[in-house]
Amino acid sequence: MFLEKVFSEGLAHFSYVLGDNGRAAVIDPQVDVDIYLDIALENKCRITHVFETHRNEDFVSGSMELQHQTGADIYHGRQLAFQYGRSVKTGDRFEMGDLVLKILETPGHTYESVCLVVSDASIGDTPVAVFTGDTLFVGDVGRTDFFPDKAEEVAGLLYDSIFEKLIPLGDQVIIYPAHGAGSVCGVNMADREFSTIGVERMHNPVLQKTRKEDFVRYKVNERHYKPKYFKQMEKYNLEGPPVAFESKVWTPFTADELKERMQGGMVILDVRSAEACAGAHIPGSLVIPLEMIPAFAGYFLQYEQPIGLVVNDARQAEQADIYLGRLGYDTVQGYLESGMQEWETKGRRFDTISAVHVEILVDRIKAKEAFTLLDVRTIDEFESGHLPNATHIYVGELEDRIDEVPMDRPVTTFCGSGLRAVIAASILKRRNITEVEVCLGSMKACMSYACPVVKEETRG
Amino acid sequence: MFLEKVFSEGLAHFSYVLGDNGRAAVIDPQVDVDIYLDIALENKCRITHVFETHRNEDFVSGSMELQHQTGADIYHGRQLAFQYGRSVKTGDRFEMGDLVLKILETPGHTYESVCLVVSDASIGDTPVAVFTGDTLFVGDVGRTDFFPDKAEEVAGLLYDSIFEKLIPLGDQVIIYPAHGAGSVCGVNMADREFSTIGVERMHNPVLQKTRKEDFVRYKVNERHYKPKYFKQMEKYNLEGPPVAFESKVWTPFTADELKERMQGGMVILDVRSAEACAGAHIPGSLVIPLEMIPAFAGYFLQYEQPIGLVVNDARQAEQADIYLGRLGYDTVQGYLESGMQEWETKGRRFDTISAVHVEILVDRIKAKEAFTLLDVRTIDEFESGHLPNATHIYVGELEDRIDEVPMDRPVTTFCGSGLRAVIAASILKRRNITEVEVCLGSMKACMSYACPVVKEETRG
Amino acid sequence: MFLEKVFSEGLAHFSYVLGDNGRAAVIDPQVDVDIYLDIALENKCRITHVFETHRNEDFVSGSMELQHQTGADIYHGRQLAFQYGRSVKTGDRFEMGDLVLKILETPGHTYESVCLVVSDASIGDTPVAVFTGDTLFVGDVGRTDFFPDKAEEVAGLLYDSIFEKLIPLGDQVIIYPAHGAGSVCGVNMADREFSTIGVERMHNPVLQKTRKEDFVRYKVNERHYKPKYFKQMEKYNLEGPPVAFESKVWTPFTADELKERMQGGMVILDVRSAEACAGAHIPGSLVIPLEMIPAFAGYFLQYEQPIGLVVNDARQAEQADIYLGRLGYDTVQGYLESGMQEWETKGRRFDTISAVHVEILVDRIKAKEAFTLLDVRTIDEFESGHLPNATHIYVGELEDRIDEVPMDRPVTTFCGSGLRAVIAASILKRRNITEVEVCLGSMKACMSYACPVVKEETRG
Amino acid sequence: MFLEKVFSEGLAHFSYVLGDNGRAAVIDPQVDVDIYLDIALENKCRITHVFETHRNEDFVSGSMELQHQTGADIYHGRQLAFQYGRSVKTGDRFEMGDLVLKILETPGHTYESVCLVVSDASIGDTPVAVFTGDTLFVGDVGRTDFFPDKAEEVAGLLYDSIFEKLIPLGDQVIIYPAHGAGSVCGVNMADREFSTIGVERMHNPVLQKTRKEDFVRYKVNERHYKPKYFKQMEKYNLEGPPVAFESKVWTPFTADELKERMQGGMVILDVRSAEACAGAHIPGSLVIPLEMIPAFAGYFLQYEQPIGLVVNDARQAEQADIYLGRLGYDTVQGYLESGMQEWETKGRRFDTISAVHVEILVDRIKAKEAFTLLDVRTIDEFESGHLPNATHIYVGELEDRIDEVPMDRPVTTFCGSGLRAVIAASILKRRNITEVEVCLGSMKACMSYACPVVKEETRG
Repeated sequence: MFLEKVFSEGLAHFSYVLGDNGRAAVIDPQVDVDIYLDIALENKCRITHVFETHRNEDFVSGSMELQHQTGADIYHGRQLAFQYGRSVKTGDRFEMGDLVLKILETPGHTYESVCLVVSDASIGDTPVAVFTGDTLFVGDVGRTDFFPDKAEEVAGLLYDSIFEKLIPLGDQVIIYPAHGAGSVCGVNMADREFSTIGVERMHNPVLQKTRKEDFVRYKVNERHYKPKYFKQMEKYNLEGPPVAFESKVWTPFTADELKERMQGGMVILDVRSAEACAGAHIPGSLVIPLEMIPAFAGYFLQYEQPIGLVVNDARQAEQADIYLGRLGYDTVQGYLESGMQEWETKGRRFDTISAVHVEILVDRIKAKEAFTLLDVRTIDEFESGHLPNATHIYVGELEDRIDEVPMDRPVTTFCGSGLRAVIAASILKRRNITEVEVCLGSMKACMSYACPVVKEETRG
Repeated sequence: MFLEKVFSEGLAHFSYVLGDNGRAAVIDPQVDVDIYLDIALENKCRITHVFETHRNEDFVSGSMELQHQTGADIYHGRQLAFQYGRSVKTGDRFEMGDLVLKILETPGHTYESVCLVVSDASIGDTPVAVFTGDTLFVGDVGRTDFFPDKAEEVAGLLYDSIFEKLIPLGDQVIIYPAHGAGSVCGVNMADREFSTIGVERMHNPVLQKTRKEDFVRYKVNERHYKPKYFKQMEKYNLEGPPVAFESKVWTPFTADELKERMQGGMVILDVRSAEACAGAHIPGSLVIPLEMIPAFAGYFLQYEQPIGLVVNDARQAEQADIYLGRLGYDTVQGYLESGMQEWETKGRRFDTISAVHVEILVDRIKAKEAFTLLDVRTIDEFESGHLPNATHIYVGELEDRIDEVPMDRPVTTFCGSGLRAVIAASILKRRNITEVEVCLGSMKACMSYACPVVKEETRG
Repeated sequence: MFLEKVFSEGLAHFSYVLGDNGRAAVIDPQVDVDIYLDIALENKCRITHVFETHRNEDFVSGSMELQHQTGADIYHGRQLAFQYGRSVKTGDRFEMGDLVLKILETPGHTYESVCLVVSDASIGDTPVAVFTGDTLFVGDVGRTDFFPDKAEEVAGLLYDSIFEKLIPLGDQVIIYPAHGAGSVCGVNMADREFSTIGVERMHNPVLQKTRKEDFVRYKVNERHYKPKYFKQMEKYNLEGPPVAFESKVWTPFTADELKERMQGGMVILDVRSAEACAGAHIPGSLVIPLEMIPAFAGYFLQYEQPIGLVVNDARQAEQADIYLGRLGYDTVQGYLESGMQEWETKGRRFDTISAVHVEILVDRIKAKEAFTLLDVRTIDEFESGHLPNATHIYVGELEDRIDEVPMDRPVTTFCGSGLRAVIAASILKRRNITEVEVCLGSMKACMSYACPVVKEETRG
Repeated sequence: MFLEKVFSEGLAHFSYVLGDNGRAAVIDPQVDVDIYLDIALENKCRITHVFETHRNEDFVSGSMELQHQTGADIYHGRQLAFQYGRSVKTGDRFEMGDLVLKILETPGHTYESVCLVVSDASIGDTPVAVFTGDTLFVGDVGRTDFFPDKAEEVAGLLYDSIFEKLIPLGDQVIIYPAHGAGSVCGVNMADREFSTIGVERMHNPVLQKTRKEDFVRYKVNERHYKPKYFKQMEKYNLEGPPVAFESKVWTPFTADELKERMQGGMVILDVRSAEACAGAHIPGSLVIPLEMIPAFAGYFLQYEQPIGLVVNDARQAEQADIYLGRLGYDTVQGYLESGMQEWETKGRRFDTISAVHVEILVDRIKAKEAFTLLDVRTIDEFESGHLPNATHIYVGELEDRIDEVPMDRPVTTFCGSGLRAVIAASILKRRNITEVEVCLGSMKACMSYACPVVKEETRG
């Protein structure tokens, strides 16, 4: 009986393959399913079952693709009218050798959410592990802001699912959640990747709110952001995502070819490092450093719009394409060959973004220089401490709130480390705000200096 | 905070890499350490600590090699005079970021055995996981037969270690043992790879013997085999194994070259499948199918003797060399190129072993034909059911007990599946017993036939 | 300007990628096109042209697949009505950077055959290399037996193509043919992989027949075999092979599942080594050791019939599937997991083939024992020397000529090395000839013994 | 009989493996020899011979390492007192199966240079190919500036070697040189990777100088640069380079750890792209973009000095280490983890280099602004066309001639594409010239603008 975890970086998503005696199940597969097939093969198993703990909203489900390639059956919770797969309900039971998977309906994060309880027939019914989906994480619980009209109801459902269904399974049960630290699906997930019901019962901060009303109030007051692309994911994952994204003509472009395509409407996505993009980038390009794509591309990219990449090398282009594919973007058409060299040596104009150190910002603030310090972190991060006179707009909302940025003075973008700041800088430049600097290091660098940090509640 | 398990097939050995915040520890490393370096790299960590839960006796420790390559410190229990590394005692504490590892001395399997308790400083002191070495497995406990003079004492120590030290850690603690199903370091390990103290407390059959005297009696009565090579492993792992086995001239041999080396004392180790070896093999070769090397090579191969391989292809030769290296054998000098083809097309003589089906054996038994049915399974397996009139000699003892095999009639070797039987057949042939057959399928195949299975206690 | 050769083992087929300045061409691609995409990527090129030197008959063309994935154009000779791609004629010219490819129509092997002459614009028009397809090989020329009614005509055309078109290019021209030693597309190709027009002009044995009538007579008298599947390949490659063979549910089977499928009409193809198949195989299975698939599967396998594999491991299954795919077989449905172990331990019956050494055959022949020595080599090989009283039937014709095999005495199959002999042995067994042995080593082994070899012309 | 080419990028070095019948030779191996072992394995060969066409001066020879791993013999020309291997002379002959290698002494590039003539015993003595080392390249011949006192003598020797020894082999001979386009071992090598004696005889520009005096004059007037490290290579390759560079403790460093090591004398080598280094780099670091290391590191790095890398990721660090190892640098101790992020988020100061477009330079030149345009290309490149008022110092000589750079005005570095310019910019900054810009695109970008290019002879 084996159980392997697959980590999807950026999304901080966990999927799982488990099986026994030649049969295997996959929980919450991502769309690039080769890894599951490889794990199954290595364990001499055939994938026969695919379970989705809920309709995922932050990535394209690989269930249909897995079914196509293996003939496996797909199972979901019954509280949503999925247009593919089969419904399950509490008590449903699936066996592979000694491995037993039992369904536990656990509404809250969504109505159709289920957990899967693992037991081992060779020792009896005792629960040994549980796949908790987006219901219970290490150090946090699932977000409950997807049904704003029913905020209290769903928070209450989540309370019941956790306190009346999961905790009673017993302290000895290992938990396998669908996300880890860094996911947008929770706020405060622990960095630790392994835990049990017992450990969470004792130490998960949200589970210390044992009175239902405290729990509900806490959840209702959480503030989350939601990338626009979640809608497309929800649609895909409800209707059944396309099997195998279309094979595409995927090539290196010369500078001339890329330029021509830009004029035809292609968006240029520069996924190189913050420093490289600052050093030189194609005017008008959208900068999202590679590792930020899973969490941020969904705020800025339109489905259907052709995408051309700027990358260090072909391998990076491939990785960017995988990340984008997981979000349902299948319109990458190629990449500028040889990084920016090709562009520069063809004499094309390039743009730069000056990188500034926090020390200079502090000096400017002290000298009361006229400039906009644009802090693009989340509202929670901002309120927990920021530089004086900073303007706050979350990076994901910057395009819609661009008019709030003063045009008459230079702008310095600022975030936690500099990565979101460079995304923001590129967005400002695309909107013709030309005097833009990026603060590399940003808030983390402030920790090493006697920076005058301000704390405040923005909420009324 | 990450934790990755590394599985060493054949030995059914688990080693682990865990770390946080740029620092990592490795528990019980095997000698091919690249995998640990890769995992550390992927998690952006430097390996700074190596822990050995005890002096391993079934594989060469990779601690010295890891230290050589990374500069990490090595730690062991203090009850053995290791000639390298540092001693630890209960209460010693190691921190990497939020990860805390605490030493728990748990004598029993050996005197110097320790467990490592994992906690997470960000949530406090609660134990979250424990590395149990050879003290506690999923479904079994460590063997206690290494000190025959002190059988009861060490069994009692193991009882105390488990019941007074491990179980009190709490049901919520995930266990990470050093071995899984298939290891020679325990008898009845569960096939399941994941468990907690709670699950073991409730369901581990040995832990149900809660009265110390029952536990001790059970352990003292266990019967184990011990390959001869364990001695060399013990010596290596006490003194510090050599760093980096010597680079060797590692080449394909022609039939002529191999023949010449055989005459110079090289042992021919045929690691192809049971069927291929039965189909044709080099006269005088020792047959051990690849996946059987980790568990059985140590019974038959001498250290220092040059080894020549017969393989399907270079990849299989490489795998065999890795398996042998883990047991401390570093004398593989090459392999016969192109499988047996090279040997056959050069006109060299080859030998065959007839494969027989259990049905034929049953017919012969019924017909009272004169033949030796040589059952080479363990004594426990034999006693739990065997064919009538079978002779029992454990495969690992066959060379020493060869005189007990009747020479005057054909011999059919028999085991659980046919794999140990083909090893045994090759040993008989090497000792000039020429009329030898192998029963492919063996005991497992008997399950599908109305075979007349006999159960008996051989013990007085 | 780069040029890379891709070798397809078994078929002994060479395809090529060449390019300059960001553009690349592929010559005679096989159906698994990833390798071309990788090479193009590594050389920072986009594949824009695909050339077929002729309608290949021994493998499925990858042209359509490459076009699908890259948008490249496909080009063929104009003397055949291809249902895809574009026609070219002598003098047509294609440029990529400094690389110039010029078409040279060279009928003979087939009517539409073309060669591609390479020059380098930076030094002028001098031919530097030529892709010779199946027109000219290292040490041989293309077979001309595909148009039996016009044997002399096509042999004459080939003479003209070589002597009037290729040789005049000059001694300095490097040749890149479509096949190397071991291919069924020629008889006596040299083992050397590199040559020039000059070297061939001086030393290619066929090119020493400078008088056209000698050349034609020689070619007309050649004897070739043609696997049945060539017809399907010809059809595919004329009409345009399917793009991307269907994704299939591709899995390990249990013994029970495989048995059930066999009853439903699945053919069992055992691709393990000759020795392993001899040691034990599933009754009724067709044995073709992996490396023999490209050259021999086409004689025995029906298109459309479902195929189940017996393999050592999943990797071997994958390789077998690739080989079969190149021949247009896309009906592999899975493989027996864990080699024959699964079959044997489930108690299923297995069959064996005794392996005999040539020495024993010689003894039997001397003793005039009654047995059939069935030599399954080609007629040319047979005539160049065979054991006395051997019966000759080419392995590829054995199924159709099975009635010529005497049923009343044991049969020993015999070939060059033992590989074709084991294929033949399995065919006999499938046709209920039960007393079958295989001579491993076969003719090559005879060289090491004073075997009484007979030479004779069978032709009248 | 196979022949495989191994390309070493950056050095533009070709080494070769060729063999037949189970034996193989390697020509001019680089120090990372795994690739030769892999090729030999794939071709089922044992490497038994290593040939060096001459004492290479631009990379560490892998001969000793190969010998250590395979037991092969090493052979060199006899005109140099190598402290390892064996001497060969014209007419010496080596056979592997049908493959015959004959030595041809060809002094000129160096005194001990040899070529190896390949023939195929199965067709006779006709030369089929020749390994030309640094004697004859595609489109150029070897440099002859290593013995300045004997410039005319060695140029004359080279003439004789080519015209009296190589050309007489015949037009049909394929040539396999030791370097291709981009190497510092020749000036004008063709971009095409394949050629024959015939093609070179007709089109190699230097071979058109058929009168010896023209040839000699041409060679004597060539201008070459020679990195300082050539001396160390020459020493290594004369005495026998160390077998297996020491295993090193090779780790990610935190910003603090790196800082500490910098203070202890570690040089920081930043191998990221030109744009990334421009965007932000560690003050005091030496910038050499990865692909420039083979050709340029030897000008700037001291042997023995510890090296710390700044990279995008661990893979890039590994590649940099391989490149440096080929030049004999074995002191890389680690790399800053996570690119510059780690440095920036720890609040450490960073530096930037502004990137400017040629258009701006042209405007400044027209406006007669006071700035230094520092052109760091070779003297040949500079003379063939440069911007007005540019100062010329070759990048490799910049450290020694730093005093020639005016300190009183901003400096803009300029080269062919921007890569050497960014190296130069970092050198200026390390020497406390702070107002430095880099012109990305440089001379190539000028081609797209109406840039006022000046041509002049600098030589008197």
